[in-house]
Formats: sequence, C-alpha cells, structure tokens
Amino acid sequence: MTQESSMNGMGEDALVARLLAQWPQVSHPVIVGPGDDCAVIECGTTWQLLKTDAMVEGQHFTRDEEMHRVGWKAIARVQSDFAAMGGAAEALVVTIFLPSDRPLALWEKLYAGMAAAAKAHGGVLCGGETSRSPEGAGILISVAGTGRCYAEPVLRSGARNGDLLYVTGHLGGSLAGHHLDFSPRVNEGQWLAKMGFATAMMDVSDGLAKDLPRLCMQSQIGARVEENKLPLRNHATQKQAMNDGEDYELLFSVKPEHQADLESTWANDFPRTPLTKIGTCTQPSAGMSFTGGWDPFR
Amino acid sequence: MTQESSMNGMGEDALVARLLAQWPQVSHPVIVGPGDDCAVIECGTTWQLLKTDAMVEGQHFTRDEEMHRVGWKAIARVQSDFAAMGGAAEALVVTIFLPSDRPLALWEKLYAGMAAAAKAHGGVLCGGETSRSPEGAGILISVAGTGRCYAEPVLRSGARNGDLLYVTGHLGGSLAGHHLDFSPRVNEGQWLAKMGFATAMMDVSDGLAKDLPRLCMQSQIGARVEENKLPLRNHATQKQAMNDGEDYELLFSVKPEHQADLESTWANDFPRTPLTKIGTCTQPSAGMSFTGGWDPFR
Repeated sequence: MTQESSMNGMGEDALVARLLAQWPQVSHPVIVGPGDDCAVIECGTTWQLLKTDAMVEGQHFTRDEEMHRVGWKAIARVQSDFAAMGGAAEALVVTIFLPSDRPLALWEKLYAGMAAAAKAHGGVLCGGETSRSPEGAGILISVAGTGRCYAEPVLRSGARNGDLLYVTGHLGGSLAGHHLDFSPRVNEGQWLAKMGFATAMMDVSDGLAKDLPRLCMQSQIGARVEENKLPLRNHATQKQAMNDGEDYELLFSVKPEHQADLESTWANDFPRTPLTKIGTCTQPSAGMSFTGGWDPFR
Repeated sequence: MTQESSMNGMGEDALVARLLAQWPQVSHPVIVGPGDDCAVIECGTTWQLLKTDAMVEGQHFTRDEEMHRVGWKAIARVQSDFAAMGGAAEALVVTIFLPSDRPLALWEKLYAGMAAAAKAHGGVLCGGETSRSPEGAGILISVAGTGRCYAEPVLRSGARNGDLLYVTGHLGGSLAGHHLDFSPRVNEGQWLAKMGFATAMMDVSDGLAKDLPRLCMQSQIGARVEENKLPLRNHATQKQAMNDGEDYELLFSVKPEHQADLESTWANDFPRTPLTKIGTCTQPSAGMSFTGGWDPFR
C-alpha cells in the first residue's frame, strides 16, 4: 500500500477534506457545515450549534488518569467549542466505550466529572449510550450536543487583512495539568459575540501553530505572530506555546479601530482573564510568519 | 474483582441506570432525558430530538463488510430512532475512528453510504471528527444529531392497560442482510404521531424480547404477545423474531377504540408496509407473557 492510499500518509485535515467532498453541500436549516468549531442551524431569532468530539485513552488521557478529570475534560472540550462560536452548551449526549475488565467505581467517577463540568459551564446531560470497547482497546468517549448563540455566531471565516489577533489566558505546557482541569471560556466567548468585537474566532486545541493556519485558511488571510508577545503558561517556552496544544483558549481577530474599546471594557468585565494581542492579520500572499529566527509554521 | 464491581456482571441497561443516577435530573429546555429513543428539547411550536448512537466493527458489522452498507446503516439507525418518536433527522455529525492501515477507498465508500442514507431518509451531514482507532481496534462510528417533530413526540411511556400492540414490517433473520440495508420507518413514524394513533412507540433494534420490556417498564404496564401473530421475515422462526434484533421496525401501542380506524387508514396510506397486531398491554402485575410453551421473556 502506498502512503497516498492509506491514512498513514495524510494529516487529519486533508483526510477529512477528501472524505467530506462526498457529502452534499450544507442545506437548510444548516447554515454552517464542516470546517468551523461547530455546525450552525438556523433557529428563529437564535442560532443553534451542533458539535461532536471524541477522546481516546492513550491519546487524550492516560490509562491511570483520575476518571473525574477525564469526565470533566470530555465535556469541557465541547463547551469550549461552543464558546468559540460565541455560544454555550444546551443539551449533551455521551457515547462511552468501556473495557469490561475495569472496576465500576471508575465509571461512576467518570460520570461525576461530566456532571460537574455540565453544572459549572452549561449543558444538560440528557442521554447517551454505553458499549463495550473492542477487544484490546481502552476507553473511548464521544460527546455530542447542541449549543445556543443569542448573538450571531462568530465564524472562523470573518478575519480581514489588518485585523488584530488576540488570545485569552496563557499558552503552552498544558500537559502538566491544565488540559484536564481547564475552564472553557464560555462567558468570554459569549461576550465577544454579543459585543461584536470578534470578527473571527476559534478555540486553540491543537496549538497555535496548527490552529491559526485553519483560521487563516477559512478567512483567506495571512498572519504575523510576534514571538515576544505570546502569553506563556508558567515556564513554557515560545515553542511550547505554539505547539503543545490543549490550551482551550480563545483565538480571535478584532478590527484595529476597536482595539482601545475592547481592551478597556475587557479589563473591566474580565479582570481575571488575561487578554493578549499576539499579532496581526495580513494579506493571504504573505502566508504565516513569526517575528523571530525559528518558524513554528513550517 | 467480583462480578458486581466490574462491568462483566451487569447488563447495559443496569449499568447505564446506575451511572445516570449521578446526573442531575433533566431540566429546561430538555423535557425528555435518558430512557427513551431520543432526548426531547422544547423548541417553540415544534420539538427537537437529540440522539447519539455507536457502531463497532465485529459487533454491528464484520471487518470484510461492504463499507457503503456500513455507512448506510450508521445513519439509518439514527433515522430509525427519530422515526420512533414521530420525527425525522435534521442535522447529523459523525465521529469515526479509523485504523490507519486500511486503504482510503474504504473510507470514501463509508462516507458515500452515509450520504446516500441521508439523502434517502433525511438529515444534513454537517460535520464531525475523524481520529485514528486505538492500537488493535477496528472501525468505530458514532453518529449524533438533531431531529424534529412537528407533532407531539410519541414516548415509550404512554401505553396503558388494554392498548393493542402493533409492529411494522417483519421480524427475525435480519443478519441475512436486512440489518445493513433497511429503510427506517420515517414516514410511518411521523404519520403515527401526526394522526395521534400511537400512545407509545419505540424502534425494535435489540429484538422484541428485549425491547418490549423497555416499553413496558417506561409505561408501567405488562404485555401479552400472541405467538402465532408475529410477522416473520422470510424463514425466521418465532424465536428468531423475538431475539435476533436489528429489525428497525416500529413497535407501538394503540387504544382499542382506534383499531378499525388505524387499520383502514394505514392500508390506504402505507399499502406496502405490513402492519401487524401482535398482542395487548396488560396490568403491570401480569408481567410479560407469550401465548405458547416457550417463554422468550425469561
């Protein structure tokens, strides 16, 4: 088998793009389909969001991880995707594949962690399915559900040349614990949509070096990131801030004339959430660049 | 580890019930939570449905199965769940875990099968996620999505003592092919809800011997099934009709005074879909019974 004919030779983005080509274009009532943080469904005077997300043992958490934290993360990841459109979770369903040989107490902790995240950051857990894992496989968790935007959803495609790029919180070093315990930026995302500041938005789950190019591709822009502006978590390096992933912070673009207004009202409304301008949107022909010797986008 | 403390010792229904006890009761806007074919969300003058469903290689399909049929089945199972509430699919998202060593052409057939089912029986495929399967595991597919009811959803809980029990189509022998190629009873389910005939409804996916007790439990009734009335698929035996599962037919209850009206209007509106009265709802104290020597409910 050649590399081109198996999944080994393709990145996930390329594979999904190729497979999705077989699906019909989105149609009523769906107004945003694959390619953004969530799908968007017209729903009268509000917008409904639809999302599915999966976690795999050994990839998103280790076998010996505390199950309450795993449950929290499974729900918080989806809440973060809703936040990235300017919405919040509404109804959630969960599919879990469980190896049959582990103690029941683990699942009770897993479910309790999910319930805690839903209580803290929104969404009613309203159903799901529990199946045995395939022989030899560990835990797999798929969370799906609906969210709601009361202001027009902020897509990945709205950034324009000259817009400023911001991130919330800190980046890098997430594997030390943040990736299991983070609070999704639900209030901040809803606020950014309602106030009309964000021209494009997404959450940083795979790392800025992978996620920013996705926003740029959807918006058909380039971007320049300023290396010494990146807000580093604890002792993370710039390289870690670009590549580690699992930050679950919001990345968004803002028109330059709104900079002063955004920064002053943000400081007032979210005094405990750092907000950092990390760069600028450029012409698409400029591609992605980084002010510094090392190029995280290569 | 004792049986009681691991998953090996519990059925799926018991396990899910125990785990769900940790979740808060459903609350606005969710009006029906775990325990029915779908969750139900209040949505103005209509009702939205939410469902997630998983398929595992080796359990719901074999490794060498034609991938177009597997894709069709993954979507049709969810469409059947929406039909069982009297609704139809609206927006669907798909999570697929793929082993990295199989040819890309398989995934293209899988996606084409999903698109064909959506085109035939409703739902816009609007996103999802593709991940690598855990080492050693085969294909796993999780489909989630929303559906819509324009008439009040038919729950599992509405059957009363004296109501008549009906099934659509035929039962048993599904593994010969029906389980991969079936057409979900979407029109029939919507019609039953709109006409107000069905007091309770579900789809038969695990076999009548497992599914009827679930309807009875939710409705707090007993049931008596007449052995010689079961509509048998091809050469299936009564035992197969009770136990095989994967029929994806509708099981529903009807008030006895509506029998004549249901049967005549059904024959007119669905001349090609068999409709069979298979038994009667009884008092809960009567439990589940079967007119014949063999007891499929034990």
